[in-house]
Amino acid sequence: MSGVRTIDWQDFHITAIDQTELPGQLVFMEIYTVEDLIAAIQRLAIRGAPALGAAGALGAAMAVRDEPAFRDRDLAALRTARPTAVNLAWGIDRVLGRLAEGEDAVLAEALAVLEEDAVRNRALGERGADWLAEQVGGQVAVQTHCNAGALACVEWGTALGVVRSLHERGRLRHVYVDETRPLLQGARLTAWELARLGVDHTLVVDSAGPSVLARGLANAVVVGADRIAANGDVVNKIGTYPLALAAARAGIPFLVAAPESTVDAAVATGADVEIEVRDGAELAPPPGTATLNLAFDVTPADLVTAVVTEDRLVRPALGERLS
Amino acid sequence: MSGVRTIDWQDFHITAIDQTELPGQLVFMEIYTVEDLIAAIQRLAIRGAPALGAAGALGAAMAVRDEPAFRDRDLAALRTARPTAVNLAWGIDRVLGRLAEGEDAVLAEALAVLEEDAVRNRALGERGADWLAEQVGGQVAVQTHCNAGALACVEWGTALGVVRSLHERGRLRHVYVDETRPLLQGARLTAWELARLGVDHTLVVDSAGPSVLARGLANAVVVGADRIAANGDVVNKIGTYPLALAAARAGIPFLVAAPESTVDAAVATGADVEIEVRDGAELAPPPGTATLNLAFDVTPADLVTAVVTEDRLVRPALGERLS
Repeated sequence: MSGVRTIDWQDFHITAIDQTELPGQLVFMEIYTVEDLIAAIQRLAIRGAPALGAAGALGAAMAVRDEPAFRDRDLAALRTARPTAVNLAWGIDRVLGRLAEGEDAVLAEALAVLEEDAVRNRALGERGADWLAEQVGGQVAVQTHCNAGALACVEWGTALGVVRSLHERGRLRHVYVDETRPLLQGARLTAWELARLGVDHTLVVDSAGPSVLARGLANAVVVGADRIAANGDVVNKIGTYPLALAAARAGIPFLVAAPESTVDAAVATGADVEIEVRDGAELAPPPGTATLNLAFDVTPADLVTAVVTEDRLVRPALGERLS
Repeated sequence: MSGVRTIDWQDFHITAIDQTELPGQLVFMEIYTVEDLIAAIQRLAIRGAPALGAAGALGAAMAVRDEPAFRDRDLAALRTARPTAVNLAWGIDRVLGRLAEGEDAVLAEALAVLEEDAVRNRALGERGADWLAEQVGGQVAVQTHCNAGALACVEWGTALGVVRSLHERGRLRHVYVDETRPLLQGARLTAWELARLGVDHTLVVDSAGPSVLARGLANAVVVGADRIAANGDVVNKIGTYPLALAAARAGIPFLVAAPESTVDAAVATGADVEIEVRDGAELAPPPGTATLNLAFDVTPADLVTAVVTEDRLVRPALGERLS
């Protein structure tokens, strides 16, 4: 992914990797309207909390060039394109803060969001690697879930940013990757990124992650987040919570790597976050069978050994708060 | 499934439902040789610990009619067709105990194994339902995993036997079914059985099971087992352990329903059981990605609220031993 941004701005439009086409082929979308951007977000062609922050920022920069009537409609629709990650609204609100200065200032702010993404991720990756190296002692073997890599951001990655920093230091032994049903972001995206980076990795079914920890094959869990509550509860891709339970049982660190934009001081606990329920067709149920396709789960703060951001390391399991 | 046996004996051969064809179509296999029986077991056309006990019994009855040289080879191959469930060897050993009386006595014993299966499952289903109804109080909402239904047995089912007993009593509110990657025994087999039984049920991805418990949607976990160690450690389909962790966290019962033939007094703990690692191709990894396709996991005895068999209810979490 070096040199290539997951989402970017070129000649008055958004370019973004269509993540539904990976790992089969690397296809770039050209997005000229907020409507098309929303569609890309909803079908998860653009996904990952930090990337959604960038999408919100760029989408708002597009929207403010519309007629006022369309602008408000587009901004409202973009804000609610997906309910769980706070970064989408964060990106929109950040760039609209400069609306009084004109459309060009809004775009400049959006481009600043993109520029900062890699810097933020590098910083949190280094801090997370420092902490994990200290906690684990020897070589670190990581269990991760879903995709919190470069594809979930503009560049570099959050959970995989920590993994890359460990890899650069020669401190990474292995990465275990959950498939991440139903849309297989682990098997399709994280495995693809790790293969390109030359990182030794092994794919397991989601329900095997806890056994990987119980058997001592991995000695740390590193995941991203879609929203982090003030008390340290972490909302992330469905399947994160069982890894946190298993990490606590195994007595190994459970590290959440996410930018500050993922922290939502306005929500007291994870119970206050709306959890997206997606179309049950993603599970291909047989006739006569209902589905409950929860896209995210809540990991209680007491199971979260640490949250690392570009600015700080917080230990919710010790009672430390995010805000 | 009323009146239809998952595995049976007719006119000197085995008939069995080909479970790889479900839920698309209900196909019966006709199996005339031990070699074909082993192939059916290895591709999971016949699966489920109690059904493997019946397969072992019937296969041994077939084998003893061969020339002695073939007989020993066939029995050895059948015994090790799959390593984790103890029932296969149990079925073989039980019927061979009558070999001195001749081939007909061996077959009679195998047919007795089949006859007893439904009786045993009815008994454990009733005992499990009694206990759950008492533990939960009101309506019971069950989370289950994989398939421990009639399809895993000769008839009736073990974990789903408990569910059916609750349903008959009007005490069942709902059943949540995990997909059970990679071969989807939950989505394909358990959902199919529950639909035929008219039981309200909902399919979730495996990694959502713990959230179903955390949200209070289910108030009990009921699963089968492939082997139960003397100390109460339970070896069952990969994905059972995370449900046990989540049940303990939620403070709800985790019930294992299995016949006595699943209890292996010869193994002290789950660590002594060989865990089958299946072909990684079942996970369809992308190029350059390794796999670890663990078929089973170990749930430590302290997380097992109760084991119910046709003869007894044992509470490993309270320190009670199986043998």
